[in-house]
Amino acid sequence: MTDVLALAQALLACESVTPARGPVFDVLEAALRPLGFDVDRFVVGEAPDGPVENLLAVRGSDGPHIAFAGHLDVVPPGDGWTSGAFEPEVRGDLLYGRGAVDMKGAIAAFVAAASQVDGPGTTSLLITGDEEGPAIYGTRALIDRMATRGIRPDACLVGEPTSTTRLGDMMKIGRRGSVNIWIDIPGRQGHVAYPHLADNPIPRLIAALAEIEGIVLDAGTDWFQPSNIEVTDITVGNPSTNVIPARATARLSIRFNDLHRGEELGRRITAIVQRHAPDAIVTPKVSGEAFLTEPGALSATLATSIEACTGLVPELSTSGGTSDARFLAAVCPVVEFGLLNATMHKLDEAVSVADLHTLTSIYADFLQRSFAR
Amino acid sequence: MTDVLALAQALLACESVTPARGPVFDVLEAALRPLGFDVDRFVVGEAPDGPVENLLAVRGSDGPHIAFAGHLDVVPPGDGWTSGAFEPEVRGDLLYGRGAVDMKGAIAAFVAAASQVDGPGTTSLLITGDEEGPAIYGTRALIDRMATRGIRPDACLVGEPTSTTRLGDMMKIGRRGSVNIWIDIPGRQGHVAYPHLADNPIPRLIAALAEIEGIVLDAGTDWFQPSNIEVTDITVGNPSTNVIPARATARLSIRFNDLHRGEELGRRITAIVQRHAPDAIVTPKVSGEAFLTEPGALSATLATSIEACTGLVPELSTSGGTSDARFLAAVCPVVEFGLLNATMHKLDEAVSVADLHTLTSIYADFLQRSFAR
Repeated sequence: MTDVLALAQALLACESVTPARGPVFDVLEAALRPLGFDVDRFVVGEAPDGPVENLLAVRGSDGPHIAFAGHLDVVPPGDGWTSGAFEPEVRGDLLYGRGAVDMKGAIAAFVAAASQVDGPGTTSLLITGDEEGPAIYGTRALIDRMATRGIRPDACLVGEPTSTTRLGDMMKIGRRGSVNIWIDIPGRQGHVAYPHLADNPIPRLIAALAEIEGIVLDAGTDWFQPSNIEVTDITVGNPSTNVIPARATARLSIRFNDLHRGEELGRRITAIVQRHAPDAIVTPKVSGEAFLTEPGALSATLATSIEACTGLVPELSTSGGTSDARFLAAVCPVVEFGLLNATMHKLDEAVSVADLHTLTSIYADFLQRSFAR
Repeated sequence: MTDVLALAQALLACESVTPARGPVFDVLEAALRPLGFDVDRFVVGEAPDGPVENLLAVRGSDGPHIAFAGHLDVVPPGDGWTSGAFEPEVRGDLLYGRGAVDMKGAIAAFVAAASQVDGPGTTSLLITGDEEGPAIYGTRALIDRMATRGIRPDACLVGEPTSTTRLGDMMKIGRRGSVNIWIDIPGRQGHVAYPHLADNPIPRLIAALAEIEGIVLDAGTDWFQPSNIEVTDITVGNPSTNVIPARATARLSIRFNDLHRGEELGRRITAIVQRHAPDAIVTPKVSGEAFLTEPGALSATLATSIEACTGLVPELSTSGGTSDARFLAAVCPVVEFGLLNATMHKLDEAVSVADLHTLTSIYADFLQRSFAR
């Protein structure tokens, strides 16, 4: 049986800031091989967004196929840790280290669960070294690899830290989509005393943004909160009080539910801006589309396991930012469940040792129930 | 008789970037004393806006009192002059040097005119070393000095370069006022995926600016173009696509005619902004109020002199930026007339030598007609 605490510590001892490669994957591979997993590691991409290492581990070949997805890369630790960010240390009930909850702890828990439950069915791990970065060469590459090898899970559990106050209080059955939109409106510089000789781009920007501020995208759905548009920046950067500036820029962030597609939102905003400023340059970048795994057998099975081990009935949520589940949703039904997210991306990130054991039990129970379905 | 070209060259040979002091005033004093002027030089103010030298020269004590106002400071020359910016050089018909038209040339012309016409009446020169800068210790200090000494001109001619295409085509009988207004709207930073936990100041700024953009201050008057509001800057400066910013700022420039007062405009904008954003900080700074010297005897006399010497009937204008005439208008009726403004503040600033002589004739004719009134 895999010792979840020992494995978590071994993973946390490896520096693995995005994009991650090498030693941290060696540790995981060494834990998986004795459990009968076939381990396929590959490095893809080039600087600046790569190279990125990915690991695809599969055990079994028939029965229900349950995949666990996660990432071994972590965000930079920053300065001010009580103990070393990559020198895991247990103090009281807490194990400290960058990645403790996001999400090396959950990976250790899943491996420990897989050491306890082996079928009847197929188990796989889809582990990337770039979830926290641009994610160009991470889970997308794993999905390509699975397609090439003809591997297709029946369901996927992403181990992101979804719990908020107590382990088990929340799981995710979907995520909003995200699109950022850059707006750049050209004008003609000039002296403010002679406005007829200049062409101030700011009034056009204000008019466009005022119209955009008036948009109500939707009122929310059964499972999603209303889609939201935020203007996250406006920058002209003109220091001269008597100069009309030559250019005005802004940036929007839209978090949207499954009533929308990022590309369509980009077109809609572009049309509004260009009606006010025909020569505006509008550049939408879709970070991810919204997805929803309608509540059903998969979420019910996971909820049952969570309740069995914690006594809590998890809320089925679609809140928060994006995760790699947005890519995996194209392959099979996806749910997300993991540790407490209170300390993720913060100094002194830490996981309760008791939670590591409970999460192992939940994952093991989930595997057992899934294989029995 | 003062040689206008020689005096202009001597003034141009002195480096006198704002704030100006010393040698350039020595040159002017040396030209004025032999003409019978009492010369009062004084230095006021401290860094960063000072010290500034000013010169108040008076000749005569009764009859009509005609003042000539101007400045010996110049804007920085910048790189790329054909000959040295402070090494005046005549090439063809043009005298090159920083300040040739703005406005050492006009000062030389007025001194030459005063050497030709001495009364019956009082002649004075109000010459500052800071017109191009903050103008805190310049013409305002000269006005204080005159008040202290009981000197009160009947009319003032400011020698700014008002001609546009040919010497004599335009004089100014007023100037618009100017107020800059800084807007600073606080908010609360947060993650764009959780907008309910943050407070984005940008929508409030957009709403306020959209309302401000809709303002029509007036339709202009007989002598002024319509007042104008320009948004000259908006800056949030938030580089993070997923962060709601904590603060949004903007800046307005209002150029207004004599239907408005700068302070009242500041209050009006403040009220609009604070209706949209109650905790906004709004900071108006009035650079100058609008003034108008209603067309009458003074402008008619100057126009007659201009037409007599050039054949042109000058347009009576109130266009362009502010000048020190805004301060002097509180003392007595003010008109402005001087050289061509095409090269002012530019590389290779130059004045036509013929124009220097013609301007001398115009100023002399104006003195003669004014004293005869």
